[in-house]
Amino acid sequence: MIGTGRLEAFSDGVLAIIITIMVLEMRVPHQPTLAALRPMLPVLLSYVLSFVYLAIYWNNHHHMLHVAERVTASILWANLHLLFWLTLVPFVTAWMGENAFAAIPTALYGVVLLMAAIAYYLLQLAILSAEGRDSVLARALGRDLKGKISPVLYVGAIVAAPSRPWLADTIYVVVALMWLVPDRRIERALAEHRQTATGRRAT
Amino acid sequence: MIGTGRLEAFSDGVLAIIITIMVLEMRVPHQPTLAALRPMLPVLLSYVLSFVYLAIYWNNHHHMLHVAERVTASILWANLHLLFWLTLVPFVTAWMGENAFAAIPTALYGVVLLMAAIAYYLLQLAILSAEGRDSVLARALGRDLKGKISPVLYVGAIVAAPSRPWLADTIYVVVALMWLVPDRRIERALAEHRQTATGRRAT
Amino acid sequence: MIGTGRLEAFSDGVLAIIITIMVLEMRVPHQPTLAALRPMLPVLLSYVLSFVYLAIYWNNHHHMLHVAERVTASILWANLHLLFWLTLVPFVTAWMGENAFAAIPTALYGVVLLMAAIAYYLLQLAILSAEGRDSVLARALGRDLKGKISPVLYVGAIVAAPSRPWLADTIYVVVALMWLVPDRRIERALAEHRQTATGRRAT
Amino acid sequence: MIGTGRLEAFSDGVLAIIITIMVLEMRVPHQPTLAALRPMLPVLLSYVLSFVYLAIYWNNHHHMLHVAERVTASILWANLHLLFWLTLVPFVTAWMGENAFAAIPTALYGVVLLMAAIAYYLLQLAILSAEGRDSVLARALGRDLKGKISPVLYVGAIVAAPSRPWLADTIYVVVALMWLVPDRRIERALAEHRQTATGRRAT
Repeated sequence: MIGTGRLEAFSDGVLAIIITIMVLEMRVPHQPTLAALRPMLPVLLSYVLSFVYLAIYWNNHHHMLHVAERVTASILWANLHLLFWLTLVPFVTAWMGENAFAAIPTALYGVVLLMAAIAYYLLQLAILSAEGRDSVLARALGRDLKGKISPVLYVGAIVAAPSRPWLADTIYVVVALMWLVPDRRIERALAEHRQTATGRRAT
Repeated sequence: MIGTGRLEAFSDGVLAIIITIMVLEMRVPHQPTLAALRPMLPVLLSYVLSFVYLAIYWNNHHHMLHVAERVTASILWANLHLLFWLTLVPFVTAWMGENAFAAIPTALYGVVLLMAAIAYYLLQLAILSAEGRDSVLARALGRDLKGKISPVLYVGAIVAAPSRPWLADTIYVVVALMWLVPDRRIERALAEHRQTATGRRAT
Repeated sequence: MIGTGRLEAFSDGVLAIIITIMVLEMRVPHQPTLAALRPMLPVLLSYVLSFVYLAIYWNNHHHMLHVAERVTASILWANLHLLFWLTLVPFVTAWMGENAFAAIPTALYGVVLLMAAIAYYLLQLAILSAEGRDSVLARALGRDLKGKISPVLYVGAIVAAPSRPWLADTIYVVVALMWLVPDRRIERALAEHRQTATGRRAT
Repeated sequence: MIGTGRLEAFSDGVLAIIITIMVLEMRVPHQPTLAALRPMLPVLLSYVLSFVYLAIYWNNHHHMLHVAERVTASILWANLHLLFWLTLVPFVTAWMGENAFAAIPTALYGVVLLMAAIAYYLLQLAILSAEGRDSVLARALGRDLKGKISPVLYVGAIVAAPSRPWLADTIYVVVALMWLVPDRRIERALAEHRQTATGRRAT
């Protein structure tokens, strides 16, 4: 059975590559002028947005896997499913950036974010089902408000994008800011867990 | 001598990069319209297919190397040979996707899958020869039905591709689904092994 | 909480990818002649310069993180902020190289170096605030002359670039050479630390 | 001070990326025909050659670093210097392949191989100087025939390339085959070392 360490290392590798190759989609302008740089602004902005999203996924993904004690087949494939949607981020980022946040690319960007959020939720379910309802993760998640609100906001953005792309883009920024606050719930639950069960062996 | 851990880490790195750079072959359409997105569908489908194949290789490769206790020169080079064929996957995936599963690219895709399957089989032989016929891996593989049927199916697909590419593509999907079931044989044999030989030292 | 080991591994991964994909921006000339190779010279030179800068960052970043004993949320995001600016290096390197060190690309190159230097400084502050003013790092940095002079020199280069790009490029080379001397301060402080506090447990 | 483990991990990462992104230089043909695939043959051949060279470097590099017990500043920068030349391999591979092993690209390919060989030699010197003349590595290398013949053969190939590129290409293949035999000298010396000095503590 694959250890969590190995699953984390592979996921980290994929995330590090996704985050870095995105920059390859920023085509270098041919003229050495400030004017040639101006159309790069939306490309840069969409890159910043996706960089932040991937950083958040890397951070939260790590916190969640850290709590998992063993890797079942469902966890393995749920994790690969999540990575699949995240690998599409560079594609939609480039399409949205090169078209200056136009309606359809903005909507597709939301679709990929939505699918990644669903994939993350499925991964969470797979870990919960392996760890049990009384596990550290279960307590850490609590009502999991952010996890439940995000997909709803993405759906709203996808619906809004064709007529008001700027509204959709604002929603993406708001969701990112909402998640930027690191997920302290798991850390807190872990700390409590350690206090109440000091007799258990450390990993 | 190179440890299995290091060989796994290097292989994981290469696999993570292959899986991720494939997305760079998906050229971003210039128009921000749904119509511009439509020709991307076969590109996306071929990407999904290759993503699943590489995920299966990553999973099975890990299970197999996990059983190996030491890395001989034959294992080292058999592993590099396997990685070589897998690095060609992004190329044939892009060619097949951009030409909407046309006859010749579909046949070449099968050739790369076939060569990778043969390379995997040679790696298996190298490990078996180092570990011995009574090893955990030998018992885990048993008759190795899936490993023997896959190359036959690939050959069938390559032969069928020039006249009926859709049949070849169907075969690729069927083989992928057949392997999606994680290889529990090795895990089972390992579990039995642990039960019968509890006196042996753990790694 | 994310361990320093994991943060280092992720940062190393991103740095290794940045350093390597830069070479993908070097477009292969179409003609197989020496004449076709000549315009590649500035591209190669800008690549060498950025390779050295990224190697220096990798080296110093490691020394600094090595001293950190735990990763707070501020350290995590300060580190991601630094990586963000470093991922822009391939873009500005290619733009500067393809335009033979023209004025505007040279200035933008300096802006990215400046932002990375500021991000590095913020990361240093985050670690210092977590470790305390009496920490090994605090003593290791001392007056941190190089860290304070570099941003000033970058600002000078950015200002000089529009009228005298060659002066700006010279400054980039000088700063790189200044840093090439490995940061022995931290190693020395660590050595002293070990001597004076031999009773402390090793990690 | 950076541990050898970390230096190896970083070098492995860079080598894994170089080996994998080379395939991105293989431009996908636009027509789905066998005729469109034919001009890809030299591209594929040059890719195979470089894949083998990088695999050999990965293998030997590991064996050598494994023997090193500590990383000095000279080892660190000698290693980065080696990685620098190896990152140029994808560029010269693509140029040589796309021009069907033409004279000048073939010569430049040899220059990069030569520089990498010199960089490897310098790295060897840096490790020897840190480990001492009586070290395991010193005994393992012995007269280091292969290491001394290779640069001479590269120089011969570079000189031959302008008039007889096929001769230069043959030399590259011969040197690769010569190295394909894994470097058992270091393993042997290590084994002897372990026998004669069994009292020393294991790492």
